[in-house]
Amino acid sequence: MKEIEGEITTPRGFKAAGVHCGIKKNRLDLALIYSEIPAISFGMFTTNRVKAAPVELSIQRIRKRSIQAIVINSGIANACTGKKGLEDADKMTEIVAERLNIEKEKVLVASTGKIGEFLPLSNIEEGIKQAVSELSSKGGEKVAEAILTTDTTIKQVVVETDIPARGKGKVMLAGIAKGSGMISPNLATMLCFITTDVCITPDALEEALKRAVNKSFNQISVDGDMSTNDSVIILANGLARNKKIKTWQKKKKLKIEDENFSHFCKALDYLCISLAKMVARDGEGATKLIEIRVKGGAFPKEVRRIARAVANSPLVKAAIGGASPNWGRIMSALGSAHTCVDTQRVDVYFDKLLVVRGGEAASFEKEKLKEILKRDEVKITIDLHRGSWETVFWGCDLTEKYVKINKRYV
Amino acid sequence: MKEIEGEITTPRGFKAAGVHCGIKKNRLDLALIYSEIPAISFGMFTTNRVKAAPVELSIQRIRKRSIQAIVINSGIANACTGKKGLEDADKMTEIVAERLNIEKEKVLVASTGKIGEFLPLSNIEEGIKQAVSELSSKGGEKVAEAILTTDTTIKQVVVETDIPARGKGKVMLAGIAKGSGMISPNLATMLCFITTDVCITPDALEEALKRAVNKSFNQISVDGDMSTNDSVIILANGLARNKKIKTWQKKKKLKIEDENFSHFCKALDYLCISLAKMVARDGEGATKLIEIRVKGGAFPKEVRRIARAVANSPLVKAAIGGASPNWGRIMSALGSAHTCVDTQRVDVYFDKLLVVRGGEAASFEKEKLKEILKRDEVKITIDLHRGSWETVFWGCDLTEKYVKINKRYV
Repeated sequence: MKEIEGEITTPRGFKAAGVHCGIKKNRLDLALIYSEIPAISFGMFTTNRVKAAPVELSIQRIRKRSIQAIVINSGIANACTGKKGLEDADKMTEIVAERLNIEKEKVLVASTGKIGEFLPLSNIEEGIKQAVSELSSKGGEKVAEAILTTDTTIKQVVVETDIPARGKGKVMLAGIAKGSGMISPNLATMLCFITTDVCITPDALEEALKRAVNKSFNQISVDGDMSTNDSVIILANGLARNKKIKTWQKKKKLKIEDENFSHFCKALDYLCISLAKMVARDGEGATKLIEIRVKGGAFPKEVRRIARAVANSPLVKAAIGGASPNWGRIMSALGSAHTCVDTQRVDVYFDKLLVVRGGEAASFEKEKLKEILKRDEVKITIDLHRGSWETVFWGCDLTEKYVKINKRYV
Repeated sequence: MKEIEGEITTPRGFKAAGVHCGIKKNRLDLALIYSEIPAISFGMFTTNRVKAAPVELSIQRIRKRSIQAIVINSGIANACTGKKGLEDADKMTEIVAERLNIEKEKVLVASTGKIGEFLPLSNIEEGIKQAVSELSSKGGEKVAEAILTTDTTIKQVVVETDIPARGKGKVMLAGIAKGSGMISPNLATMLCFITTDVCITPDALEEALKRAVNKSFNQISVDGDMSTNDSVIILANGLARNKKIKTWQKKKKLKIEDENFSHFCKALDYLCISLAKMVARDGEGATKLIEIRVKGGAFPKEVRRIARAVANSPLVKAAIGGASPNWGRIMSALGSAHTCVDTQRVDVYFDKLLVVRGGEAASFEKEKLKEILKRDEVKITIDLHRGSWETVFWGCDLTEKYVKINKRYV
């Protein structure tokens, strides 16, 4: 497995286009991803009770597991828009389907931007027409750009797996994401679209994506807020024509004993973790990526709870933003995570520097700690010393800029 | 019941003193509260797994329900200090007990300030000597000041209840609190001390404080972080010599059919809610008090979860700080609160202005909303329209100043 240069259109049989249709000022705001043949697909969506109209629609559509196109707009989230919002989302897929001459049931839709406003459908219709006419295997970069809001960088990763394709080359995977930037301060949406030419069964694809998302997008937090539009969607069109990756049930448990499934999972994990870290690092106003590793846990739940509590603590985040060596805040945050850990056995490391030993200050060089805190990637390890469960979580620092961005008037 | 001028020493038989002993620079940092006779007492403490040494000690001591003095220092939290920390906390109570000629088991201790540092015991010993010599019924203001860290104001409320004292006058209640200010950026502690001259049984006192704390201190949040030192302690010395307020068990349920218990609860609720709101309003960097009322809930848990999720959302807090009418953020935050509410039935009001009707934008005057958002107290009402449970929660806005305070180098 290796990361390679490329775009969302690098896997075989995918085309894409990104255009400006006038929802945002002077920036690309409409994207189309298209597979030459219907792709096996799976999606994971926000667990927020308030789901945007495109999320509601895509959840229904993806049940059939066969998707050929995804249309995405940025600028307006089409959330809290009721019946009209759902009709608009459906209309978007209808226009795409007509132009591409496919069934609308094979088209997904995603939106990101301001909550509570309606989409300008005539602009979108014009945009879709243009996007269809511009579809190409070189359109990936523009799509990566068109899905952004106030993200400061595009987030794109392409991986060549170790799975041989029929003929020559390997199975490929490509993904793009957007993070918690905002076109206007109503939203922090995470969107991720993944294309692959792997030949795989729907069950195996679902299992692989669930595993990868639990290790990546479910392990990041910019501010603990969950959006109405979060979506991760994967399309696998099978055009690499590799030996089909399968799973089967054995005694009610999903069994996978396929070397290629492992290869695929490894590549998908890498891709999702890379994108997730890019999203965390590019959190609103953030200047640093914070990696929190919690190990020595007695249960999976406790390591996850502690990692999340520390990553979400505004006091910890602000301290790291200010390169302030406040290890007490980490202790306080981990103690508040509703677990049964014995805090007098806890060790805390910044990078490899032991700062807390058995719940109390260890003797360490303060200058060394300051140097670590000034890096643009700060790694914290918390060892609970009571078991063997481990997790890694990524967050970012809290800065004045985060507040400034989010208090702006609409 | 009415609020009156006064201090923590206004109830009969209480004396207090606040002095400077050198933990902080040029500010009062040591306080002593003393009752002429042992007082029935009850305390509620942080549920953080990391408990400061004074909290551990006070939890043990208060089990006997008979307390005569509380010693408090600000500047250093005596948290994450291991065995030595516990010895230091015990030593503080020993010095107080010796000087006051009482048993050390009747002395509680509380600390607030930086985590992970040891107390300067010789300074504290000198401070306690001075405080004992200065104990007076006029010392309350100085105590209210000595427990502060970076709080910008003292927080003090005195209430005259409707319960007649023997002889003349009424039963009195007084309370002081400190909020999430910091002497140095390692801590956000909530401390509250309440004195009363009511004559009451331990069970009735416990019941009354639990009820009051659930309506007040458990309903506020500055940043969602839970401290290692949070404590609410009440001392009731009985010197008003009112007819003793009692409770009794009936079929395993606590029964209270005493009019004076209701009077006492009413006064204690008022006092705790007033102090809690002062703490929220004086949150670090805060410029506004935000009141969130959630009504129409099917269960008590769901209204509390939603109120807390909205009050803790950095996006909602920043928007209100910037007087930005982003109702979408409230919808997103309430949707993420892990409840089963039907978001398409939700109404949201800012003050009395209906902004969201049935989960979508209502038609309202934008100018009116902007005017409401500019006030220094913003009231939000969320109606779930599915039951009759209701709750009120208080928080504050998120400002650049919060980040600035918390990224400061130690």
